[in-house]
Amino acid sequence: MTEARLTGPVRVVGVGLLGASIGLGLRAKGVEVILADASPTHLAIAADYGAGRPAAPGDAPQLVVVCVPPDVTADVVASELAAYPTAIVTDVASVKLAIHDDLVARGADVSRYLGTHPMAGREVGGPMSGRADLFLGRPWVVAGHDGISYRDASVVDDLILDLGATLVELTPEQHDRAVALVSHVPQVVSTLMARRLIDAPHASVNLAGQGLRDVTRVAASDPELWVQILGQNAAPVIEILRGYRDDLDRFIEALGDLEAPGARRRIAEELFGGNTGVERLPGKHGVDRRYASLIVLVDDRPGQLARLFHDVGDAGVNLEDLRLEHSPGAQVGLAEIFVLPEVQERLTDELAARGWRIAG
Amino acid sequence: MTEARLTGPVRVVGVGLLGASIGLGLRAKGVEVILADASPTHLAIAADYGAGRPAAPGDAPQLVVVCVPPDVTADVVASELAAYPTAIVTDVASVKLAIHDDLVARGADVSRYLGTHPMAGREVGGPMSGRADLFLGRPWVVAGHDGISYRDASVVDDLILDLGATLVELTPEQHDRAVALVSHVPQVVSTLMARRLIDAPHASVNLAGQGLRDVTRVAASDPELWVQILGQNAAPVIEILRGYRDDLDRFIEALGDLEAPGARRRIAEELFGGNTGVERLPGKHGVDRRYASLIVLVDDRPGQLARLFHDVGDAGVNLEDLRLEHSPGAQVGLAEIFVLPEVQERLTDELAARGWRIAG
Repeated sequence: MTEARLTGPVRVVGVGLLGASIGLGLRAKGVEVILADASPTHLAIAADYGAGRPAAPGDAPQLVVVCVPPDVTADVVASELAAYPTAIVTDVASVKLAIHDDLVARGADVSRYLGTHPMAGREVGGPMSGRADLFLGRPWVVAGHDGISYRDASVVDDLILDLGATLVELTPEQHDRAVALVSHVPQVVSTLMARRLIDAPHASVNLAGQGLRDVTRVAASDPELWVQILGQNAAPVIEILRGYRDDLDRFIEALGDLEAPGARRRIAEELFGGNTGVERLPGKHGVDRRYASLIVLVDDRPGQLARLFHDVGDAGVNLEDLRLEHSPGAQVGLAEIFVLPEVQERLTDELAARGWRIAG
Repeated sequence: MTEARLTGPVRVVGVGLLGASIGLGLRAKGVEVILADASPTHLAIAADYGAGRPAAPGDAPQLVVVCVPPDVTADVVASELAAYPTAIVTDVASVKLAIHDDLVARGADVSRYLGTHPMAGREVGGPMSGRADLFLGRPWVVAGHDGISYRDASVVDDLILDLGATLVELTPEQHDRAVALVSHVPQVVSTLMARRLIDAPHASVNLAGQGLRDVTRVAASDPELWVQILGQNAAPVIEILRGYRDDLDRFIEALGDLEAPGARRRIAEELFGGNTGVERLPGKHGVDRRYASLIVLVDDRPGQLARLFHDVGDAGVNLEDLRLEHSPGAQVGLAEIFVLPEVQERLTDELAARGWRIAG
């Protein structure tokens, strides 16, 4: 373990998933962590869990990290700035400009405020969901502004680096436009697709495959949190949604009059454009075409995937990605394994030789 | 191996992924398979691969299965009906009503035609991608119509059951509306989202997480095939897209005037509706909330996932689902494991005891 860059105590306000994870991560580096939460129960759990000690009179934090819901973040940041007049205050809310503007409008001392946004999360919440390693290797955006000095900002960088995250510097405007595109608009697009399923016949939804499941997965997210996020980032989200809506109108128009000159070409161009867009995504999922896949039938009981991956490892093959699927009515699951194309044939042979049924 | 229900020879026209898989699957059951393809090379590969023998003069197939692209399916079905006047002819195209209507308009003998659609596929194509088990446990729709007798239709049921698929009976109209909803509209929604990424700043797309990757995954599909599919199922697709567009307009309007009475409630209702829609999906992916998850850090080298799943199996825990992720710049991957909530804590402890780093 490398030594912590942070030296003074860190006060964490709000001990849900993010706050508890920050506390646990900093405690693991030996940093003193002071916890506060509106819920005494959550506070006690987080302290028992090892995320830090409850706040006490006379605390003198070097840094305050506000980890409360987006709609109360500016309130809490402002009161923390007032309560600890020598501390730097940061927050982790998923929208940045509205909070900064709100603080400026209140006359808060933003020379000691620097907003951030860790691109990490889980579908569960609460202090018990916290993990010391939650941020390891994840991007963590610092939404810089001219009102804070380089020197004062460095303690926020220290926080991020101590937690093992990758620091990404953007302005609040750049951040909000970026998350509108990569997170908020996809949420809306997915939600509206899922809504189409509500009144669909049972026989129709039963034909759903992996494609629909993927498109609608994030539509299962917490509506109350998302009302706040979308409400605080309305302008960039609306701008992108309007572009999406215009594309959709053109698509519907072309599909509605296929015999019009150029209609099929326009549809093909939209579809090719989708290919181009996906290729811009970082990481393995955006570049599926680099990998070959094989589908292996797996009985739905403990130890079967262990045996499969043991056999894949024995073959000296690295799994690039994996997708599990269960068809309605089937006794077996399908594990789709993505590997480098040059090893696909050998792996297929090796798995077949070990008795695996290769389904595709 | 159970005995085949099919008795006579089956002629497969078009030996791409689906045709080759049907040939391989039927040959594995001992059924005689006759292959035909416009490409002599593809035909030779499929025959060498064991999918059947090339067609010859005097062939008398009991059943003809047409596996060619959607835009030429009706043509080929009509010529097969004429060439084999005692055979039943089926096809596997992903749109059903347009093909049936086209055949009726041509005066083809639809008393011997019954369209089907296996809900199976891979991202790759060609005869070498064929797999005997491709259809095992997958839904396979039979698009019934009143022009064919119950007795004649049974040979198509035999084909589906011999290949291990699950037979689903729908009218052509029901089928086309169902796939418009669960496949064609999600394709458009995903494509239009991916298009928004084309001109986005590098810094923005680099913040993309699993949500955006999931929403846009099918946007990487083959544009040429999709122009045909969408073109043949335009009416149901347009109807659903218009509903989607109207929802989107209302969403944009509510988001654009958040202080209007009821605006936030309308947004919350849309988001709750997305939750409700996702819950209607069959299979494990649509009901993520039934499972607890933990995220394990995995070094990006062969054998590591094998070791992880060995340890999960050793703990007696069944993996319900799995998601792999690599953050940009990170040396490690993240494996998110979904398990029944009651075993989550024990599995976390067991994995930690075996030296795994649990990241969330």
